Order: sequence, then C-alpha cells, then structure tokens
Amino acid sequence: MIGIFDSGIGGLTVVRAVMDRLPGYDIVYFGDTARTPYGNKSSRTVVDYSLQNIRFLLDQGAKLVVMACNTASSVATDTALSRFNMPIYEVITPAVNQSLEISKKMAIGVIGTRATITSGIYEKKIHEKAPEARIYSTPCPLLVPLVEEGWLNKPETRMIVKKYLHPLKVRQIDALILGCTHYPLLKPIIAHKIGKKVAIIDSSMALAEEIKAFLAENPQVDRELSKNGKADFFVSDITPQFEKTARAVIKRNITLKHVGL
Amino acid sequence: MIGIFDSGIGGLTVVRAVMDRLPGYDIVYFGDTARTPYGNKSSRTVVDYSLQNIRFLLDQGAKLVVMACNTASSVATDTALSRFNMPIYEVITPAVNQSLEISKKMAIGVIGTRATITSGIYEKKIHEKAPEARIYSTPCPLLVPLVEEGWLNKPETRMIVKKYLHPLKVRQIDALILGCTHYPLLKPIIAHKIGKKVAIIDSSMALAEEIKAFLAENPQVDRELSKNGKADFFVSDITPQFEKTARAVIKRNITLKHVGL
Repeated sequence: MIGIFDSGIGGLTVVRAVMDRLPGYDIVYFGDTARTPYGNKSSRTVVDYSLQNIRFLLDQGAKLVVMACNTASSVATDTALSRFNMPIYEVITPAVNQSLEISKKMAIGVIGTRATITSGIYEKKIHEKAPEARIYSTPCPLLVPLVEEGWLNKPETRMIVKKYLHPLKVRQIDALILGCTHYPLLKPIIAHKIGKKVAIIDSSMALAEEIKAFLAENPQVDRELSKNGKADFFVSDITPQFEKTARAVIKRNITLKHVGL
Repeated sequence: MIGIFDSGIGGLTVVRAVMDRLPGYDIVYFGDTARTPYGNKSSRTVVDYSLQNIRFLLDQGAKLVVMACNTASSVATDTALSRFNMPIYEVITPAVNQSLEISKKMAIGVIGTRATITSGIYEKKIHEKAPEARIYSTPCPLLVPLVEEGWLNKPETRMIVKKYLHPLKVRQIDALILGCTHYPLLKPIIAHKIGKKVAIIDSSMALAEEIKAFLAENPQVDRELSKNGKADFFVSDITPQFEKTARAVIKRNITLKHVGL
C-alpha cells in the first residue's frame, strides 16, 4: 500500500489528494501526534522521528512512502533515501516545479515553519533549475497552532497572516508556495491577504499527479500496491480534537488507531 | 539535588522561583523540548512522558522532584506518587491554596491548556476545601505558542488574551489562577485585560515557599540535597530559540545539554 506520514493532521490534505487522483489504492497513514509539531524542532530530532515513522509504515506493508510534512521533507529526505531502498516522495519538489511553471516574473514567495525556512531547501531547489529566480521566504510559526485550533477565519488569524505576509507582499511576488501541509486550510485568508495577482501553490495535488505518472511508468512498483479502497489511520496519540479535524479534512468517517513508537 | 521538569521552557519560571527562595540548592532541570507541547495531548501520553522524565531526573541524582508543568501535574500526579517513593511536588495545590486565601467572593477563574482544563483538577481541589466556591475555567491553547514565539506584547496577543478572558470577566471573579507555567510571562497583558480588581495567582513562588517549609520540617530530606549552587539544564531537543528564551527567563548564562529519552 501507499504509506503517508506527517507530524499530525497536516498530511491529511495529501491523503485527500492521493485518494482523489489514485482512487482505490490502499493507504496507510501515520500522524505523529504524540510528538507534534515538528516545525520548531531541530533537524536532528526531525530526522530521527522521520526514520522511525518510515520504519513503521514499512512494517505495515507500505511499498511507497510519502513524507507529507514539509519540515520532514526539508531536513530528512537525503537520509531517508540513503537508508531505505524504495520510492520515497517528499512535498518540496512538486511545489518547486509548479512555481517555476506558473511564475512569470520569477519572483517567488515561500512560507513555512521555522525549521523548513531555516533549511533553505526551497531556495536551493528553485535555484538549481532557475538560477535567476528571486525567492523571498518567511517563517510563519503560529499558523500551525491556529489551524490546529480550528481558528480558520478569525480576525486574529487574519491579522497574523497579514503580518507574516507583509515582507513578501512588498517584494511583488507573483507566486506563493504554501510550504507546510497545514496551510491549504488557510488558503482563503492567505489568497485574500497576498492579493489577486499572486498564484497560490499547494503541493498536494501536484504531488499526487507525480505519483500517478511514476506508477504508470513503473508497473512493477504499481503491481506491489494493493487496491482495495482501504485506508488505515494510525496516530501516536489520540485526542478528540484530532479525530474531529481528521474527519473534516478527509470528508469520510475514519477510525484512528493508537500506536506507540 | 532538586529535580524539576517541564514540557519545555515554562518550568523555568519555577526554577527561577526555587533559585530565589532556596539559594545554593543544586538543581537539575529537564525540558522535554523534543515532544513539547503537552497541553493538547492525551492524558495517557502525558502520564507516560512524565514518568520517563522523573526517571531521568532520578538517574541524575534528584532526591526531590517538581513537576513544573500544569498539564503533567493535572494528569500524572497520582501515578507518579504511586510509582516513586520520594517527595514529588506539583504546581496545582500551591495555586489552589493561594486562591482560597486571596479570594473574598470565592469566585475564582482558572486558565490553562486544554488538557489541564479538561482534567477538572482545579475545580476538584478547590471544592475539596471550599465546596461553596464558584469556579470558572477556560482553556487558552494558543498562549503557549505565542509565548514560545516571544510575542509577549503584540497586538495579536492582546486580542487573543482578551478573547480568552472574556467569559471569565463577565463572571466577576476576584482571583485568577495562571494554570500554566508559561502564562507568568504574559502576566502584564493578562492583568490589564482581566482588570485591577482581580488578583493574579502564579504558583511558582508559593510552590518554592512550600518546598522550603517542607525541608525545614524534614531535615533528613534536606540533608540529601546537595548545595553547591549548581544548576544543570537538560533538554531533549536543542534549538537556538529555546536557548535564547531560557537565558532571558533565568537571567544568567546557562548551558543546555542534549539528552535523548
């Protein structure tokens, strides 16, 4: 099956995209809710957690893994690829590719957690393909707790989003990468505050398309993926709030199973 | 030595109080920054983490332990006391005792994390001693991330504090318990928004006084505590931001040591 992990609920936006683009494929999800969030923690700790999460997904029968967390993708991809001999997807590259297709001015904004922005991964990947691109990035550490509280359209959230986006807005970017899987849930506010001229880039759909294209070209991997329309959701901590948000994002009834790592 | 733990930086307000009231006593601190915050997690997970943290402090030579985290104190005290044969202090009781001394109307407000408020521990402990007291409590889950970001006096923080305190303000309380060790860092805003007639109760000083009184009455415990003015700070994850905040709270130069649990 397809294994997907995140530090908590953010990765469910990726699950939704994979269910949409690859209907019927079995999915096993792991949300590391006992140690969430990852975004303010050190690389070393996030790498350790990511490797444990992938190991867990493999033990559940995953044959392809998606790191549906920008923080993990930013700091743990190289180590994960060198440690595990299997297709491992991250959420940075699809967003980078999409931003380069869309931006006409080559002036691209990136928002994410402190760990993601500090890693410089978006600058690095964009400059590999477009050395002339101007990239402006800013950490938005309070957006994850605001989303997890369900404060998706409160005045305080709008003020904080406006404050965070201000340094990007003055740079006249024309594309903005949502570099955290929580942020698509704030897309209406972010789009409103950054302005109509800026295209908002959310990697989940692009990522699901990329996996679909990869499987079409690699039938030997595709054959190993079971397709019974099953989805299992594991979390390292069960709280009523998480269950509620998970159902709202996935839009179907799901059962969370607790697992200690 | 005296062992003190918290999910992260909040417990440092307790360290400061202990250093103030018990100068010279050696302290070992553990901040579980790799798994912070505890406040939105389930009791089961917080109990597991608390027991691991106490075990670590014992291994470092602690002979008396302070759970300097309201969430841990709320859900893990009974288990900790039954598991370890030593003096274990929590931060709830000193605040309860102080509120009962101070409140004239017996109308007491409590703010804390979701886990602390859901536990109902303050209501239970206050009603044991004053069944007639009226208690109004409300969870303030965004205050911990705001403090950890250092947004101690931003307009957004003031708006969020005002929103959270509104249901307590209309109840005309005359005492407000800061039921989270992070909140003393927001005391000026909280005091301003709740109004002059309300006494603000921060348990750290009361707790330090209680330990001092206990040691005066129990010289056999006091003799076991080393007194070389040493303080060791261990964390499960080291980030530059934590170091900065830690120095600001403790007001002296400290070295953080990394330890994986």
